[in-house]
Amino acid sequence: MAVVAVIMGSKTDKEYADETISVLEQMGIDHEAHVISAHRTPEKLREFVTSAEAAGTEVFICAAGGAAALPGATAAWTSRPVIGVPLPTSDLNGIDSLYAIAQMPPGIPVATVAVGSWGARNAAFLAAQIVGVRDEGIRKAYNDYRASLRTSQK
Amino acid sequence: MAVVAVIMGSKTDKEYADETISVLEQMGIDHEAHVISAHRTPEKLREFVTSAEAAGTEVFICAAGGAAALPGATAAWTSRPVIGVPLPTSDLNGIDSLYAIAQMPPGIPVATVAVGSWGARNAAFLAAQIVGVRDEGIRKAYNDYRASLRTSQK
Amino acid sequence: MAVVAVIMGSKTDKEYADETISVLEQMGIDHEAHVISAHRTPEKLREFVTSAEAAGTEVFICAAGGAAALPGATAAWTSRPVIGVPLPTSDLNGIDSLYAIAQMPPGIPVATVAVGSWGARNAAFLAAQIVGVRDEGIRKAYNDYRASLRTSQK
Amino acid sequence: MAVVAVIMGSKTDKEYADETISVLEQMGIDHEAHVISAHRTPEKLREFVTSAEAAGTEVFICAAGGAAALPGATAAWTSRPVIGVPLPTSDLNGIDSLYAIAQMPPGIPVATVAVGSWGARNAAFLAAQIVGVRDEGIRKAYNDYRASLRTSQK
Amino acid sequence: MAVVAVIMGSKTDKEYADETISVLEQMGIDHEAHVISAHRTPEKLREFVTSAEAAGTEVFICAAGGAAALPGATAAWTSRPVIGVPLPTSDLNGIDSLYAIAQMPPGIPVATVAVGSWGARNAAFLAAQIVGVRDEGIRKAYNDYRASLRTSQK
Amino acid sequence: MAVVAVIMGSKTDKEYADETISVLEQMGIDHEAHVISAHRTPEKLREFVTSAEAAGTEVFICAAGGAAALPGATAAWTSRPVIGVPLPTSDLNGIDSLYAIAQMPPGIPVATVAVGSWGARNAAFLAAQIVGVRDEGIRKAYNDYRASLRTSQK
Amino acid sequence: MAVVAVIMGSKTDKEYADETISVLEQMGIDHEAHVISAHRTPEKLREFVTSAEAAGTEVFICAAGGAAALPGATAAWTSRPVIGVPLPTSDLNGIDSLYAIAQMPPGIPVATVAVGSWGARNAAFLAAQIVGVRDEGIRKAYNDYRASLRTSQK
Amino acid sequence: MAVVAVIMGSKTDKEYADETISVLEQMGIDHEAHVISAHRTPEKLREFVTSAEAAGTEVFICAAGGAAALPGATAAWTSRPVIGVPLPTSDLNGIDSLYAIAQMPPGIPVATVAVGSWGARNAAFLAAQIVGVRDEGIRKAYNDYRASLRTSQK
Repeated sequence: MAVVAVIMGSKTDKEYADETISVLEQMGIDHEAHVISAHRTPEKLREFVTSAEAAGTEVFICAAGGAAALPGATAAWTSRPVIGVPLPTSDLNGIDSLYAIAQMPPGIPVATVAVGSWGARNAAFLAAQIVGVRDEGIRKAYNDYRASLRTSQK
Repeated sequence: MAVVAVIMGSKTDKEYADETISVLEQMGIDHEAHVISAHRTPEKLREFVTSAEAAGTEVFICAAGGAAALPGATAAWTSRPVIGVPLPTSDLNGIDSLYAIAQMPPGIPVATVAVGSWGARNAAFLAAQIVGVRDEGIRKAYNDYRASLRTSQK
Repeated sequence: MAVVAVIMGSKTDKEYADETISVLEQMGIDHEAHVISAHRTPEKLREFVTSAEAAGTEVFICAAGGAAALPGATAAWTSRPVIGVPLPTSDLNGIDSLYAIAQMPPGIPVATVAVGSWGARNAAFLAAQIVGVRDEGIRKAYNDYRASLRTSQK
Repeated sequence: MAVVAVIMGSKTDKEYADETISVLEQMGIDHEAHVISAHRTPEKLREFVTSAEAAGTEVFICAAGGAAALPGATAAWTSRPVIGVPLPTSDLNGIDSLYAIAQMPPGIPVATVAVGSWGARNAAFLAAQIVGVRDEGIRKAYNDYRASLRTSQK
Repeated sequence: MAVVAVIMGSKTDKEYADETISVLEQMGIDHEAHVISAHRTPEKLREFVTSAEAAGTEVFICAAGGAAALPGATAAWTSRPVIGVPLPTSDLNGIDSLYAIAQMPPGIPVATVAVGSWGARNAAFLAAQIVGVRDEGIRKAYNDYRASLRTSQK
Repeated sequence: MAVVAVIMGSKTDKEYADETISVLEQMGIDHEAHVISAHRTPEKLREFVTSAEAAGTEVFICAAGGAAALPGATAAWTSRPVIGVPLPTSDLNGIDSLYAIAQMPPGIPVATVAVGSWGARNAAFLAAQIVGVRDEGIRKAYNDYRASLRTSQK
Repeated sequence: MAVVAVIMGSKTDKEYADETISVLEQMGIDHEAHVISAHRTPEKLREFVTSAEAAGTEVFICAAGGAAALPGATAAWTSRPVIGVPLPTSDLNGIDSLYAIAQMPPGIPVATVAVGSWGARNAAFLAAQIVGVRDEGIRKAYNDYRASLRTSQK
Repeated sequence: MAVVAVIMGSKTDKEYADETISVLEQMGIDHEAHVISAHRTPEKLREFVTSAEAAGTEVFICAAGGAAALPGATAAWTSRPVIGVPLPTSDLNGIDSLYAIAQMPPGIPVATVAVGSWGARNAAFLAAQIVGVRDEGIRKAYNDYRASLRTSQK
């Protein structure tokens, strides 16, 4: 079981999940990725999240658009940190996703990042910061990346 | 098991659920009401929804605010119609709830009604219309109500 | 007269109505479709809705954009369930349509679904759920579809 | 039959309609006011609007909140100018009403004014401008009012 | 001096003004069109509006985007009816224009129509309704158009 | 003629203008304040702004709500810097004012500050920064204020 | 130096910070709280954040409203996880704060939680989840809290 | 050191900064431009802003999108006027940037201009107005430009 599990709500979200995965690899974080819909396959989500937590997954990254229940539904089944990436929707641009992910009720937080591509990448950097609380190697990887930002011009 | 199940996400939503229940009673619809949080008690929600569906509940009414996953999470566990009532939130006024409930992905609809008190009452009227598809008594109760609207001035 | 009537507000809404119709056919629901504008042809709407209700139509699906009065105007002429599909508009993206359809006053609900293509398809699935309250075949068709979602990956 | 007809969607909108009426009186415009809901009493609306137009009413002022179909539904039954006043709603503040009234499809305009009290008064001033196109007395009344604004400090 | 004056805030708004003009021609309304910016050429606006009013112009149609002061600034210089068309802006889509035009203070109304192309055409139809208060020929032209809507399918 | 002129659109905006004035006094800036409506008294605005500019006024601060044309209309009559304060409106909270003030077309900028009380005070601080470009005493007053912020805890 | 540092942008944010602190205490997390403004005292923020990171602080919680730069400015000075709490503002209700905190550019994430009181409490729960990655006692405290949610009815 | 410093948050913002620079050149204002991120390179920002202020830079123009902290962070390090240009973001269109830049807390103003291209150009015109408070040549350049607007038709 991987340290970080990436879940996207639909195969059509793959372009964003790939950005997350690319940063996880850059940070040297052990990960796995799955397509599981909170609404279409709630049993599969429950099984995956509870078994992943039991097997030692430390952070969940969930990317979803629209009603975007995936991050919150994942948080409902685990007490590990859940990072939510609000994806843009074809008509409402992801404002819907942002509200649906950020406005979690007290007790069950979701760490929300920016809408779309910025958020997809930052979800992985945030995961690196979180795993870095116990893993010095990953902390160093993120620190090195931050140092590189200070010298390169983006 | 009641024909219509009303679920509110939190005890603090009771004022709105009471408006729903009052209309269900006016329509003569057999009902029951519960407080079940999609995020705090997902297992309880799963058990209630699947057992209620098995026992013959025909319509679910779910009232929730903020990330407002309750209607969609209920819809994930049943193939019966689910009506979602977006409740106002203390800072964002329920715009967040409206987006989080209305923007369901294809395959798993939630019948969304107005934000707040208007929606709480209309959820019950919509349930009467739906149950009325097979129950002439309830159809007549709603028809009579509609006729009364035409003569009284609100 | 068909069990479900699909009304679009303009011929330009046909691309969305076609998505609705395609799902109605997949669910095996008897249906018909019309272009009737609530604003340009109110008399035609009144006549169609009242005669369709009298002839046994059980659910109305109305797709409209902008001021989007069609679902509410249909609901004003019938006591059968009305499903409203908010269509995107060229400048405001359908936020206008969503508000105009969802915010119905007490007594006259419209079951609102997502903006655009997601909603167009979900309107038909919701109609299947509603008609399924009295028709076991259609209930089974929707149940089978839901089961298929659990095994296929979308 | 009065020159200007004021229609409010609900008795609870009276506070705003009173502001409209007060300005109509100030402008010396013959008027009448009614509570008619586009959704609850569509037949009554149709009858009133068509008979008022036949009897010589020249401008309709419609105040409504939420889905706010009243101005557009009135415009559907008459070819006389219709002025729409978007009323604030308890949770969404009238943004919903503004969109639902302003975004009319081509062919059937509604002259939309500001949300709430400002709009309620401006609806009457706009009616004075419109009736003033043929009635010099009313044009003079509005001109005098405008002149008074230039000397008094508000 | 024409009965209806069309003012656009910038030459880049011409595509919308052309839609307005096309409908004015269809309605047989005498008109003229100008590019005058409320912000860049306030003196020119003042001179045009006051002289046009003096010469007998009865209705002003103003199309503008963004801060969109043109309709209100025109209304400030005349007591004739002013119709405002909120144009879409490249980033904010015209929500900015809609607010800037609709939210006029009490005493100085602007008759606001829909954002963009729908509004550009409706501004001319509304002008026809307004001029039609005194001109039976134009009233008949609009009535005929409305009748044509009832038989053609759009 | 004062160095900074404060214009509010209505007497009801005085509570905000007072916050501006209080900071101008704290900064030691020579100022005067007036109630002039861009919509009700455009001639008075034109005369005041052009004569104030001629007499040496260097910065204009304009506070307005709703369509909020005052800052832009002032900028249209002067080439001196204009600061716009978007005031909250009773129903739309000042979102309307913010858009109406910030979205100025190229060539005629308005320096927009925050909605409401924060902005009313910052308009005066910004004026101090601007006048400070040529007046060392005022630059020092603002610098001293900034230094005081670093030691006091707000 | 505490494990978790709570920073509020202004003394007026204390009511929200107190909710955060109360949950941190409930979770048994060593913490400290400060008032530091990113805009008024940037040097103090830089010194505090860099020295806190050097001394071993593992998570920063930043509560701010309006332009709400505090969470991002803190993230700029540390590579440790930063949690941002968007506080409601008097006119715009915290929509401004939510955007200003969530929309961080790639490389520098801020873990955003809900607007206002819900978010203030969830920031502390999220901190418990993050620190719990290396501290079993705190992980158990949050797990116990989650278990208590499943049996008590909120 | 230049009179006006233009800072963009990212190299991808160059297209907008170029519009600013082009107007600065048209106005004859001595300027320099840099890419400095408030979040990725806060130390570089601090050093540049404090040394530029010390060397005599009078106005800072900062263009940024999303959380858009750059203008406020610059204002935190200088007491010179700072102009903020909200840039459009790929999903939220710049509404996020507008809020993040305009809603500055009392004491530290940012002069906010329009979203995107209009604002990029107006930032330079506003800088000309501000520098023009002490420099007659630049005041004349802007006055001449304004005069040219009155004769050319845009």
